[in-house]
Amino acid sequence: MAVSDLAVVGAGPIGLAVAWRAARRGLAVTMYDPEPDDSGAWYAAAGILAPVSEETVGEPELTGLLVDSAASWPAFAAELEAATGLDIGYRAEGTLVVALTAGDRAEVLRLRDHQTGLGLPARQQTAAELRAREPSLAPRPHGGVYSSGDRQVNPRRMVVALRAACRSAGVVVEHTRVTDLADLPAARVVVAAGCGSAALTGLPVRPVKGQVLRLRSPGREAPGLRHVVRGYTDGRAVYVVPRLDGEVVVGATMEERTDHLATAGAVLELLGAATALVPELTDYELTEVCVRHRPATPDSAPILGPLPGQPRVVVATGHHQNGILLTPLTADLVVRALVEPVPPARFETFGPARFGVPAVTRGSG
Amino acid sequence: MAVSDLAVVGAGPIGLAVAWRAARRGLAVTMYDPEPDDSGAWYAAAGILAPVSEETVGEPELTGLLVDSAASWPAFAAELEAATGLDIGYRAEGTLVVALTAGDRAEVLRLRDHQTGLGLPARQQTAAELRAREPSLAPRPHGGVYSSGDRQVNPRRMVVALRAACRSAGVVVEHTRVTDLADLPAARVVVAAGCGSAALTGLPVRPVKGQVLRLRSPGREAPGLRHVVRGYTDGRAVYVVPRLDGEVVVGATMEERTDHLATAGAVLELLGAATALVPELTDYELTEVCVRHRPATPDSAPILGPLPGQPRVVVATGHHQNGILLTPLTADLVVRALVEPVPPARFETFGPARFGVPAVTRGSG
Repeated sequence: MAVSDLAVVGAGPIGLAVAWRAARRGLAVTMYDPEPDDSGAWYAAAGILAPVSEETVGEPELTGLLVDSAASWPAFAAELEAATGLDIGYRAEGTLVVALTAGDRAEVLRLRDHQTGLGLPARQQTAAELRAREPSLAPRPHGGVYSSGDRQVNPRRMVVALRAACRSAGVVVEHTRVTDLADLPAARVVVAAGCGSAALTGLPVRPVKGQVLRLRSPGREAPGLRHVVRGYTDGRAVYVVPRLDGEVVVGATMEERTDHLATAGAVLELLGAATALVPELTDYELTEVCVRHRPATPDSAPILGPLPGQPRVVVATGHHQNGILLTPLTADLVVRALVEPVPPARFETFGPARFGVPAVTRGSG
Repeated sequence: MAVSDLAVVGAGPIGLAVAWRAARRGLAVTMYDPEPDDSGAWYAAAGILAPVSEETVGEPELTGLLVDSAASWPAFAAELEAATGLDIGYRAEGTLVVALTAGDRAEVLRLRDHQTGLGLPARQQTAAELRAREPSLAPRPHGGVYSSGDRQVNPRRMVVALRAACRSAGVVVEHTRVTDLADLPAARVVVAAGCGSAALTGLPVRPVKGQVLRLRSPGREAPGLRHVVRGYTDGRAVYVVPRLDGEVVVGATMEERTDHLATAGAVLELLGAATALVPELTDYELTEVCVRHRPATPDSAPILGPLPGQPRVVVATGHHQNGILLTPLTADLVVRALVEPVPPARFETFGPARFGVPAVTRGSG
């Protein structure tokens, strides 16, 4: 077996982007993935590129990471589309955050304050302004916020493009399951194996089940909805993401479960909230209930950096709900660590050492 | 091409039962069906064998037909299972009709009065009695009715068994699409082509779209629910049919539409009503949204009898929501008409002539 400069374990967006960027920097890269199909969290992801959400209020370092990665998305999208000639569904209409009930209004305004505090564009909207911007919204929202800097991408198209970019850049793909990092014939190793990273590294990455629906407009024309809508209805959060090809993504549940079942309760909750926000969705076709597991960590931030005591192995995993948004910055940080002498400062904050030295059972580094 | 005694057009339950019964009476039978797979209404059907429903109150002749066919089901099921050795999911637990709100109670009691007026067993139930009989029901139903004479069958298993019975009885199957009845090399013809009967006969059979869900209990054990439950929640009717293998069928929409789209609105409505009736369904897997079209007629009764001016052709179609329930009696009436000199009296009531002489464009009879 030839020894490569870099072995990347996992071929989701993070692994693909690392492999692509590393190959472009001149490294000989081999990717390993036993399921190169669609088993990763990215296959469910809606692809909302919004750095501020209810979950990250009070997490300044994670927020900074998300904001910086969001800022690098326009160049990343342009470069990927230019390298491949493929459309990745990148759009910059911004997000509407909508409160459907009076009780939801406080939550929406708290988010607005957080955004403006970070210097991000977020304009409060009256019901009339929301409806003028998006006529297919429910008749009487209780106000909301327009975040003009938010964007979206289609993760499924993004992965197709990243695969093509990797091929063009000379990345070799091995369809084998890696069980021991010590087996890999490579000078350096990047572990970007999502939920599978736990078994490979001993790090505390756990699966968080998400159920996501895909609807399709009758006739397959573009939906009436143009913006990504993040709605709150009676305290429940739901997002509705329209695509130009007629698809609408509705998500997502957050469940501490490992099963793969699409449940009646999740479909009911998501459809109920989505049609309350955008009534015309009632007439849309339900084409898919997608169940995947996000790789989550104890503090909900990703794990980025070399494994303690194993400088050969760099980890890029645990991105939880933020894998798509964090793809460009993660790839940049990891590839810089591979080719430059000084590791990125953010590896201090997000490195594996914050969870102590993992009890690795295999792999010598 | 050999000339057979009987050509049966359509291989749904009605066509299959006619072919089976006719072959057992000694006729040489050929069946024609271009889609012998699962495109018929039966594939969506829940298989509730309950002769009285809200739709047939005030329709004494149709009600009589339904009551008589329900009475012939036990013998039909036993004969089909004995002939094939196959389990068709026939069960006799009875139906619980449940009012979830105070406003639904009147509807439920009206149905009870109609049943007892026909001499059918229907006992009013308090909320406590309903819950004692079926502990997984919602905590506070507003009363209901126990119809101990109702039964259920699994239509998909029934079709598998009928196909086997036809094979054993020597029925020949031709997988071709019939476009002109005059082409059929047979002494007699039975048209049991569901929605396709309109084009073949000129009769007013129109498709009524139905969307039906299939859920599955986690772990695939038998559901907590034992009885068929027909529920009313805020005026919406829904049925919930448990199977011993863990499947639960939830239906059904009734839409004057010809498309095949599984819509968000239908799934939302069915899941909302079903989980309101039986809360544990929230945790069930949603395994299928099935869309099919019932063959309906202007008066919602089936069309049974020879085509006016074409005594060679007997029609057995337009069964709308009652195809499974009416299968045994329909087959009996049609086969008697084929082998006995005097046509059944019910052909007067349900014959095609009630719609005038159809403007047949093809077929000489």
